[in-house]
Amino acid sequence: MSQRERFTGFPGKWQCLNRTISKHLSKYLVEKRMEGEIVVLETLLSLCLLLIGAKIGGEIAKRLNVAAVVGELLAGVLLAPTLFGGLVFFGTHLIVVNEAVHVLAELGAVLLLFLVGLETRFADFRKSGLLATLVAIGGVVVPFVLGYGLVIYWGYPAEEALLVGAALTATSIAITVKVLKDIGKMKTRESNVLISAAVIDDVLGLIVLAIVLGLVRSGSLDVTSIIWTAGVSIGFWLGMTLFGVFVVSKIINILCPRKNCQMYDAEGKPREPHKAGKHCTIRCNGTQEVSAIAMGFGFAYVAGMAGLAPILGAFAAGMSVAETKILNTIQEVTEKINFLMAPLFFVVTGTMVNLSGLTLDSLVFASILIVLAMLGKILGCGIPVYIMTRNAREAIIVGLGMMSRGEVGLIIAGIGATSGIFSNDVFSAVVLMVVVTTVITPIAMTQAYKLLNSHGKPKAKKAAI
Amino acid sequence: MSQRERFTGFPGKWQCLNRTISKHLSKYLVEKRMEGEIVVLETLLSLCLLLIGAKIGGEIAKRLNVAAVVGELLAGVLLAPTLFGGLVFFGTHLIVVNEAVHVLAELGAVLLLFLVGLETRFADFRKSGLLATLVAIGGVVVPFVLGYGLVIYWGYPAEEALLVGAALTATSIAITVKVLKDIGKMKTRESNVLISAAVIDDVLGLIVLAIVLGLVRSGSLDVTSIIWTAGVSIGFWLGMTLFGVFVVSKIINILCPRKNCQMYDAEGKPREPHKAGKHCTIRCNGTQEVSAIAMGFGFAYVAGMAGLAPILGAFAAGMSVAETKILNTIQEVTEKINFLMAPLFFVVTGTMVNLSGLTLDSLVFASILIVLAMLGKILGCGIPVYIMTRNAREAIIVGLGMMSRGEVGLIIAGIGATSGIFSNDVFSAVVLMVVVTTVITPIAMTQAYKLLNSHGKPKAKKAAI
Repeated sequence: MSQRERFTGFPGKWQCLNRTISKHLSKYLVEKRMEGEIVVLETLLSLCLLLIGAKIGGEIAKRLNVAAVVGELLAGVLLAPTLFGGLVFFGTHLIVVNEAVHVLAELGAVLLLFLVGLETRFADFRKSGLLATLVAIGGVVVPFVLGYGLVIYWGYPAEEALLVGAALTATSIAITVKVLKDIGKMKTRESNVLISAAVIDDVLGLIVLAIVLGLVRSGSLDVTSIIWTAGVSIGFWLGMTLFGVFVVSKIINILCPRKNCQMYDAEGKPREPHKAGKHCTIRCNGTQEVSAIAMGFGFAYVAGMAGLAPILGAFAAGMSVAETKILNTIQEVTEKINFLMAPLFFVVTGTMVNLSGLTLDSLVFASILIVLAMLGKILGCGIPVYIMTRNAREAIIVGLGMMSRGEVGLIIAGIGATSGIFSNDVFSAVVLMVVVTTVITPIAMTQAYKLLNSHGKPKAKKAAI
Repeated sequence: MSQRERFTGFPGKWQCLNRTISKHLSKYLVEKRMEGEIVVLETLLSLCLLLIGAKIGGEIAKRLNVAAVVGELLAGVLLAPTLFGGLVFFGTHLIVVNEAVHVLAELGAVLLLFLVGLETRFADFRKSGLLATLVAIGGVVVPFVLGYGLVIYWGYPAEEALLVGAALTATSIAITVKVLKDIGKMKTRESNVLISAAVIDDVLGLIVLAIVLGLVRSGSLDVTSIIWTAGVSIGFWLGMTLFGVFVVSKIINILCPRKNCQMYDAEGKPREPHKAGKHCTIRCNGTQEVSAIAMGFGFAYVAGMAGLAPILGAFAAGMSVAETKILNTIQEVTEKINFLMAPLFFVVTGTMVNLSGLTLDSLVFASILIVLAMLGKILGCGIPVYIMTRNAREAIIVGLGMMSRGEVGLIIAGIGATSGIFSNDVFSAVVLMVVVTTVITPIAMTQAYKLLNSHGKPKAKKAAI
């Protein structure tokens, strides 16, 4: 990204000069010391401001009944080095997205997908029926084709089009579930279809991402290489997931065999008794938790080395831990760590949007992309439901419920930005698409239930009278 | 540090070449993308291996009844780029302590001191009596003088001697408390003196560190500049602490006024009811926690900008939060995050020890330093107790109890290493000193209670019979 380059370029160039000119060891050491300290201090200040900004944004969003992630993103946009973050204060920029901040944000994405994996049971995939599978496939294929087509039509390169298509396939399970809970529709047939389809959709979306990144790397777009890359990506991801779910989870359960046992705190004294099945005899506090998270990092590394996105590995690691007895412990700690890391990822992604670089043309492009993103899910998910059930009401609600992109869409946008595949225009359009669909979904679903329930709720009321 | 330089030098030089030679934007972008990805991947692998190593080391240490921190450190020594971490695997070093890993470790130190601050009440300083103050002063002055003298005598520069002196002043509260709890001596007079003195000692040690770093930076060692730096350091730290404890904590209590109110989870639904005084109406999960931690980062940044060690700022921020109603919430989350971050700090500090660079001379130096470190505390803390109470038994126990250095000693060693002040010999000697005193203290105290209690326990037993 050009603005990251511009604002983090200074230490790099300085290092350059330093390395080539200064040959005196003592002088070199003094400068090295200064340099190390400056990086730590600028990271501390940037983290402080970005986190507080993210949380203020999140709070405002929540009070406006919008998902917190929207506020965190917008806070990032405002704090970008091209806007308020670029203000100079005591001779340094207020916010510097240096390598350390950038890696921390990436770790945030890895931990977030690890947590999503923790909440995903492998058995759910097998249980979810034909209808959910069809809805998920529709929700991947139609938005992908629409997004790819638009970007190609607008004259951007094919690799950008592929990644936009991948971003459009995502579905936010969390937001869909929240809406259904809020309006008390969790136990309906359409909600079952919605949730199963959203889970399958996220996995399909991640596989599409793996294929797209493989294609972008190999650089060729012919049919043979698409099939080859698809096969390798799906195969490797499936292999890693099955290994984790059926081998690693067993090993974890063997290492932590006892169902009801004692935890010790940092000072070595026994802690208050815990529920059965939650803990095993581990004398050093946090060992299970840290090992599980380290395993997430390890899986992410292996996925990255194999040419997949690291987040896919983290997701597989999370799904493996989801099959173990220590799930609750790990989930609790990961959630606490994600209090810090997830907003950091969203706010740093926000800082990559360069508002000052947007033109009228790019705004038009973003608007069309948003409309296609919503239409893609409504048609792609609604049509299979209508064909299978002949129930237009259910078809519309499922279609609307699948619209919101949430975290996975943003993570794909972030990959596009940090890898240099996305131009600023396309990146900003994708982020706007995620924000708008995330804001609109809860509103649209609530309205749809109100309008379409003329043969549901009112009847019940009449019966009550 | 030379080994850090050697192992992280590659990307830097590569960047250098890249920047100066390649002018083609498209080629540049491709390389930038590769570079960003490589940094993320090498960080993921290093974090995975370092964390797992730290936890295995910690578990082994716990099972040998030694503090976990000792095992985490030794794991780091084994995983150093100069030992197993330097093994080449798929063309890359197994463990690369790159800028991101280094900054993460520094954040671990900041969060650790933030947590220590959370456990320190400002009122404790005022309550602790004359005896504890004298013990603390003795425990700072004598080890400082002994350490400074040895390093100067051995022919190292004065700035190294000052920092070694500072490292010798530290006392590990956690380890002292753990020993007293383990042997059931928490409510004795000597334990009260020990705990109060250890708290004052840590703060005095941090102030000594601030003065030393100020002196090293200004480069002059005359009496006027020592007094001036001491005054400025103590003044700034006290000012920051008082501002935090009396102003910021009040603001936090005003922002979170209600004693018994509702928390909402990430999906917006109310969570299970909480105890009074623990939570306030915050709709976005984790806002208080993340804001408090961000405040810790901010205070650390301000301390760093003022020429103090960033950890001093984090400690002040922790003490400020310790005065608020939200203390429990913050403590819980910080502890969970420190499951991950604190071992990372210790293991990364361990990787900085270059065992292959140690000579017989440096081992002799380390042995003398360890003996002086123990003598310094036994004499410096024991003599004030004996003068005040004329009780040799209490004097010996207090002296032995103050020996262990623990976290603060290591943090000072880490500052010495990353800032380039410490040579490898001195750094390794200080780390060894921390390890040995931490291992010996619990053993020495247990033995001392056994040997010296001939007029304590046995009497009680006789009375019982």
